[in-house]
Amino acid sequence: MYEKGYQTVDTAISSVFTKMKGVSYTNISEVGRIWDVADYVFPEQGDSSFVVMTNYISTVGQKQDTCPELPDGKNKNKCTSDADCDEGKFKRTGNGHMTGKCVTNTSTCEIYSWCPVEDDRQIPDPPILQRAENYTLFIKNSITFRQFNVVRSNLVESVDQNYINSCLYHPKTDSLCPIFRLGDIVERSGFNFSDIARVGGAIGVLIDWDCNLDLSIRHCKPKYEFYGLYGTGKNDKVEKPSLGYNFRFAKYYVENNVEKRTLMKVFGVRIDIIVHGRAGKFDIIPTLTAIGSGVGIFGVATVVCDLLLLYLLPKRDFYKSMKFKHTEVQEEVPALPPSQKERELPKE
Amino acid sequence: MYEKGYQTVDTAISSVFTKMKGVSYTNISEVGRIWDVADYVFPEQGDSSFVVMTNYISTVGQKQDTCPELPDGKNKNKCTSDADCDEGKFKRTGNGHMTGKCVTNTSTCEIYSWCPVEDDRQIPDPPILQRAENYTLFIKNSITFRQFNVVRSNLVESVDQNYINSCLYHPKTDSLCPIFRLGDIVERSGFNFSDIARVGGAIGVLIDWDCNLDLSIRHCKPKYEFYGLYGTGKNDKVEKPSLGYNFRFAKYYVENNVEKRTLMKVFGVRIDIIVHGRAGKFDIIPTLTAIGSGVGIFGVATVVCDLLLLYLLPKRDFYKSMKFKHTEVQEEVPALPPSQKERELPKE
Amino acid sequence: MYEKGYQTVDTAISSVFTKMKGVSYTNISEVGRIWDVADYVFPEQGDSSFVVMTNYISTVGQKQDTCPELPDGKNKNKCTSDADCDEGKFKRTGNGHMTGKCVTNTSTCEIYSWCPVEDDRQIPDPPILQRAENYTLFIKNSITFRQFNVVRSNLVESVDQNYINSCLYHPKTDSLCPIFRLGDIVERSGFNFSDIARVGGAIGVLIDWDCNLDLSIRHCKPKYEFYGLYGTGKNDKVEKPSLGYNFRFAKYYVENNVEKRTLMKVFGVRIDIIVHGRAGKFDIIPTLTAIGSGVGIFGVATVVCDLLLLYLLPKRDFYKSMKFKHTEVQEEVPALPPSQKERELPKE
Repeated sequence: MYEKGYQTVDTAISSVFTKMKGVSYTNISEVGRIWDVADYVFPEQGDSSFVVMTNYISTVGQKQDTCPELPDGKNKNKCTSDADCDEGKFKRTGNGHMTGKCVTNTSTCEIYSWCPVEDDRQIPDPPILQRAENYTLFIKNSITFRQFNVVRSNLVESVDQNYINSCLYHPKTDSLCPIFRLGDIVERSGFNFSDIARVGGAIGVLIDWDCNLDLSIRHCKPKYEFYGLYGTGKNDKVEKPSLGYNFRFAKYYVENNVEKRTLMKVFGVRIDIIVHGRAGKFDIIPTLTAIGSGVGIFGVATVVCDLLLLYLLPKRDFYKSMKFKHTEVQEEVPALPPSQKERELPKE
Repeated sequence: MYEKGYQTVDTAISSVFTKMKGVSYTNISEVGRIWDVADYVFPEQGDSSFVVMTNYISTVGQKQDTCPELPDGKNKNKCTSDADCDEGKFKRTGNGHMTGKCVTNTSTCEIYSWCPVEDDRQIPDPPILQRAENYTLFIKNSITFRQFNVVRSNLVESVDQNYINSCLYHPKTDSLCPIFRLGDIVERSGFNFSDIARVGGAIGVLIDWDCNLDLSIRHCKPKYEFYGLYGTGKNDKVEKPSLGYNFRFAKYYVENNVEKRTLMKVFGVRIDIIVHGRAGKFDIIPTLTAIGSGVGIFGVATVVCDLLLLYLLPKRDFYKSMKFKHTEVQEEVPALPPSQKERELPKE
Repeated sequence: MYEKGYQTVDTAISSVFTKMKGVSYTNISEVGRIWDVADYVFPEQGDSSFVVMTNYISTVGQKQDTCPELPDGKNKNKCTSDADCDEGKFKRTGNGHMTGKCVTNTSTCEIYSWCPVEDDRQIPDPPILQRAENYTLFIKNSITFRQFNVVRSNLVESVDQNYINSCLYHPKTDSLCPIFRLGDIVERSGFNFSDIARVGGAIGVLIDWDCNLDLSIRHCKPKYEFYGLYGTGKNDKVEKPSLGYNFRFAKYYVENNVEKRTLMKVFGVRIDIIVHGRAGKFDIIPTLTAIGSGVGIFGVATVVCDLLLLYLLPKRDFYKSMKFKHTEVQEEVPALPPSQKERELPKE
């Protein structure tokens, strides 16, 4: 009943460090290319929230220039004459600044922009970095319960350097191994890896610490859980809008004194590591408070019993008269001097 | 009085994804340039905390070299002879490593540094990317109440793909639209867009979920609020030090086998998206606890009433005698055998 | 006893902005180089969690090519013939895609990778950027207690622009100065700067706000605390695995139409700024609840007293008879008509 109400509770201060391992090899138009961790993780510094690139659309050699806007497929940005292209205006979803010309062969306005404009109408399928499935993620998590002066790491006693070198997380057999296969994380969160790799998606990895510090500190261990975020999960009955996860970034370079860039539209698995830490320890104050509330409940019991006795049971009149002393009876004889009233009372 | 004390409460686990849209055109010294999302958002991967560049000071073509330190305007780093420039020393706010020479035409020490040194004494006014006002921000937020096994997204039932394609957040008419105009966010947080765009500033966007899960899940909806952070807000009576928001970053490149960089001092709007999620659901334990505490209050009422009756009212002696049974009266006749005492008591 | 139970409590919404200052000069193989904030902070935009580079291994001019894998020292990836190198396979900790050849002079498999492969077997000692010790960190922290409509910044009343220009945090003499020397942060968290600078490490900076809003707002001030995270702290009795903190990032460039990159393995001090904000203010509801629970405790006292009186004291029979009215005595005379029963009762 008390739900450990006798304990005082502290919430953890936590810090997470992540590190991906693994390489991918791609072979696009006869050009082999290796992708390693410096190429596919954003941001690079091992944050608790990061994206692993699994698919991309790259636009090489963009420079500041004029070029026709990309047709959007729904003919919404189609133009038939220069009059459709207001010079100096922008369209909400446009890529640049209109020059006032309508380009006839694409039927779209000419814009000043990073040219050529990215063509993202077709997402590569299968995903270019499908092998990302085999990447591994190493999570280091440190939590501090200030109130109890306890510091714990997810590398608990049984997790030593030898074990880390060879283990792989499995909820049953290796539930404390801090190394996770990306494909496993995705599948356990309810996504299909090929789907998420193609259009991107977000996954929450929850590290749950629920520690009873009245026991040995060795029993204070993390539990890992995996959640698919923002829909596309199998168990989602309602189809949600805006599936996928993508963002753009650019690599800048200078060629023949002209600033150029390679624009990447990156689709990937975003992983948010969320730590939920809670520790309890026996303390006298919450114990008393819990007992206090509990006794309050017994007070309720008294009231309920009284109500039953006084208003529901057949002999209720009898109980009523037993419970309440008829002080008003005494008040019916106000003529008596106070001294007499007091003399009579002890008899009652 | 109970403030939904009959509910058990869970705090949300949340994940936020953001995406900016919009382009700016600048025209500095006859060179047009387009700035798109890959150019003006830091970091690029759609984090819950990010900066939108609205103004900058760029120093093109820096390389490792010696050059004179920048005069700071207050003549604090002025030198008159080489003796003022200790070779190999650094100044706390200096840009490099002193070579020991005093450069006569600037009256500052020569330093080994990324040269030429950035000159940030004048912040461009009006801000270079004033048009950032019209950028839009799309926020995707997923929250999970683990205890109740509920997952919600800010794209609630009424927000479908069609609506998203055309809506713009407005607190009255479109309070659930997840697309925000940057200028609106800034104005609603109490800043003036031109000011913040020039020197930078920070804004908190709070997504507040306060869900009563005893009702239908469809009523569990987000509420958006906007806060100006770190002062410069209109309502701030006290002028706070260190206004603005800026940071530096560098784009590296190699030219004629020499490593060079373009240093950017970026002024911008930093947006921190903060999620505050709380859900309540009926549960028997907190209900009983709340009732228990409530009954405790009635206990207090009893005590207060008694005190009033016994010590304050004119007829207090009467009530006193009614309340307390004079057990000491019985103790005055200890000579009686216990059996007799007990026989007498039922009469009382 | 009430532990400020008469107050209603709000948790802060907080935003943190950080800025490093300072430069380092390195002199490797006769090439001097200056490192400034754009070079050594990751990410660049002033996040609450960031890394300051203190040491690195750089691999200049990598390009997509074939080269032999790095021997790992433990002869685990040694090969004696081409049969040991499965074409098209990857090793878990390998850097690339095996071509099927065994290179005789290194006795390792040939791989297709970013070549040459990084050689990180030796970490530079002493750390290359040892001078990072003297960098300073400026922290701006804004907190909002929504329930009480209070906004505070760590630049409190006594911290003005003049003070900021000259102060340096010291727990005794300058406990409110928001400028911290990196070396001091490291030492106060229990690390040794040379150690952490060489292999990296993580430090938590806690900003603790515990405000009693019944008093003047001027007393609502931050307190800074420093924690070493993930072990290597001096006070750690147990040697933990996976010490250090490092990550890789790449600077890309194009040379003679070939994409190249400089890969950096960065060792550094990761700083996580954690804000813990709590404000209390008098409110009638929690006061009543606290009193209620407290009265519950007095209820317990009553029960305990009764138990003592009724079951333990020598005169317990007397008290028992005083406490309980023998209603069953009345029930022994059910023959009497109800009217008579009622007439008799007032006498009782």
